[in-house]
Amino acid sequence: MVFEKGGVKSPMRPLGLTQGVAHAALVGPEELARGAGLETIVRLGSNESPFGPSPKAIAAMRAEAERANRYGDPSVSDLREAIAARHGVSPKNVSVGAGIDDLLGWIVRAYASNGGAAVAALGSFPTFEMHVTGFGTRLERVPYREDGHIDLEGFLDAARRLGGALIFLPNPDNPSGSMHPWHDVVAFLDALPDGSLLIHDEAYANFLEGDARFPRDAIDPRMIRLRTFSKEYGLAGARVGYALASPDAIAALDAVRLLYGVSRPAQAAALAALGDDEFVASVLTRIAEGRAEYHALGARLGLRTLPSATNFVLFDFGSAPRAKDALDALLRYRIHVRKPPFPPLDRYVRISVGMRSERTQLAAALDAIVGGTLHTPNGG
Amino acid sequence: MVFEKGGVKSPMRPLGLTQGVAHAALVGPEELARGAGLETIVRLGSNESPFGPSPKAIAAMRAEAERANRYGDPSVSDLREAIAARHGVSPKNVSVGAGIDDLLGWIVRAYASNGGAAVAALGSFPTFEMHVTGFGTRLERVPYREDGHIDLEGFLDAARRLGGALIFLPNPDNPSGSMHPWHDVVAFLDALPDGSLLIHDEAYANFLEGDARFPRDAIDPRMIRLRTFSKEYGLAGARVGYALASPDAIAALDAVRLLYGVSRPAQAAALAALGDDEFVASVLTRIAEGRAEYHALGARLGLRTLPSATNFVLFDFGSAPRAKDALDALLRYRIHVRKPPFPPLDRYVRISVGMRSERTQLAAALDAIVGGTLHTPNGG
Repeated sequence: MVFEKGGVKSPMRPLGLTQGVAHAALVGPEELARGAGLETIVRLGSNESPFGPSPKAIAAMRAEAERANRYGDPSVSDLREAIAARHGVSPKNVSVGAGIDDLLGWIVRAYASNGGAAVAALGSFPTFEMHVTGFGTRLERVPYREDGHIDLEGFLDAARRLGGALIFLPNPDNPSGSMHPWHDVVAFLDALPDGSLLIHDEAYANFLEGDARFPRDAIDPRMIRLRTFSKEYGLAGARVGYALASPDAIAALDAVRLLYGVSRPAQAAALAALGDDEFVASVLTRIAEGRAEYHALGARLGLRTLPSATNFVLFDFGSAPRAKDALDALLRYRIHVRKPPFPPLDRYVRISVGMRSERTQLAAALDAIVGGTLHTPNGG
Repeated sequence: MVFEKGGVKSPMRPLGLTQGVAHAALVGPEELARGAGLETIVRLGSNESPFGPSPKAIAAMRAEAERANRYGDPSVSDLREAIAARHGVSPKNVSVGAGIDDLLGWIVRAYASNGGAAVAALGSFPTFEMHVTGFGTRLERVPYREDGHIDLEGFLDAARRLGGALIFLPNPDNPSGSMHPWHDVVAFLDALPDGSLLIHDEAYANFLEGDARFPRDAIDPRMIRLRTFSKEYGLAGARVGYALASPDAIAALDAVRLLYGVSRPAQAAALAALGDDEFVASVLTRIAEGRAEYHALGARLGLRTLPSATNFVLFDFGSAPRAKDALDALLRYRIHVRKPPFPPLDRYVRISVGMRSERTQLAAALDAIVGGTLHTPNGG
């Protein structure tokens, strides 16, 4: 074939879109370990469950391995129906994505891309901010309250100033570990200005106990609720989460989702995980034990800890530089943790509840670090 | 907490974005089977490999199942390095996504969202069109040539009319099965107008034989090459594919990708699959056998078939209505196939190469359908 030559001196240039602001905050433990020349690393930085997936979910994934040549169901029907049944809602109230990260992208894109407005806490879960930045959405960031709570009054002021906004409320919150009771969420919804939509990110909601638990079937056109299989279900690596919302909102999200975005093993694993309540109950018990142990450890070391409704605890190192030093020192003990990036939470180090052996390692490391005024094995 | 009530009469409304145009074309076999009341269905409609993943990839996925509580490496370092080594390029030339579906979304978004221009074949792989529609990109659709080839001269005219465009060239092509040799791709690149970028989708490139194979290490700033583990590697359900491009293009894609978008089992499976060349070679041999069998079957039944450089074959039913009837009749024989939606290819039925038992089932069904002038077991 012969073509008359064109003049491609410069190919199409990218538009310069970037979610990059928060990328640095999300360097994975693999890359950190590599950088530090470590072969292994204790992962207490990503709020993973140390107790693995349910044996039923493991069996389901193993069985699916040899069927991985087949695309997963693009309608995610079986899993959507099981989720709907679990919540006492219709499958039309459910959309399944590759984790809350994925779902947040759909929401920002479907509702507020190219000039919409959003409100989030300063130093909130970085993926939301990445999507907001990437999709050209205006963001107002409201500082956390001194006690570690998201400032709902501040959120409301911002939403009113913006004349309605997409509001990102992780509840219980990451990275603070704090929570707002359901009746406050309802009051907050009632107070929002027209043109607002609440993203109620419930990644950690199953860690709430007794009366504090959220209603399983609350559907409200002013709100999209998000859930994940990455925490107590132990399926972070499989990538699966879901949105609970009005049929209209679900339709808006489905219109921008990737059809084959939820892998076949993930669909099977999540379905099996939903069928093993006993396992999840045992995980929640063990996480609660570990959390209590962390509070006791903090008390013993003279490090204040914040109350936590999640699977991680914030330890107060008194100042941001000291918290950063502790982070670096823990890495030299081969322990990966993270810290909130902005005041007033930047003096805390966030530590995920690990399994017993990991907690013992952590306690020994913190003993040495705090006892030795941040003396570390490498003399750092 | 008490809030002064707002006036939420109407919550934020979605922007009305939709990729929906092509959704109907992508109803999965699960939903079709459900709709037809079938418990099982022979999947010859999605160009999956019937030969499964490599035993090494299966073993890797099984081993990862119990580690699914850990997030996958957000940098996808090990897999990126293995891919780069395989192609003789730098890891900076590689970005890994959750299949080509995912990568196409990044490209459209990063280069041509909100007013950019794109060129594709009329009736091309629908995911590209979905992204183009969803991201507000202007699309020119160029009909296929009568012989089933993408019309490169038509693409060039369109790109020139548009003053540069994102050009989607699956090569070998789906759904036609046709291909353009590498020297034509290079001539096409040289003829493109400024401001163009070629998406060279090489999903089926490994099915090319001998001298027809594309250079493994060609990197060109005017082109993004796409590869997948969904075909000969047998990992469609795991969701993993990659882009090969200039470091600048890779950076533009990385800036909009989902950090944890490639699941942990998928990363492990793809890495293991790359290490089993023997298995892939045997798959390619078996696919070639099945393809030859399909051409012989067509000849025996008096159905012309198009040459195919892929793992599927187009059977000519003479007219679009007859092709649609054959599709429906095959579903009544519990066999799922698909057909191109637009002329001149809409008189063909696209049938993926199945395993031997599936091909026997298909031959029996086509015998009955074509022999009986589309008589079917249910009298349809």
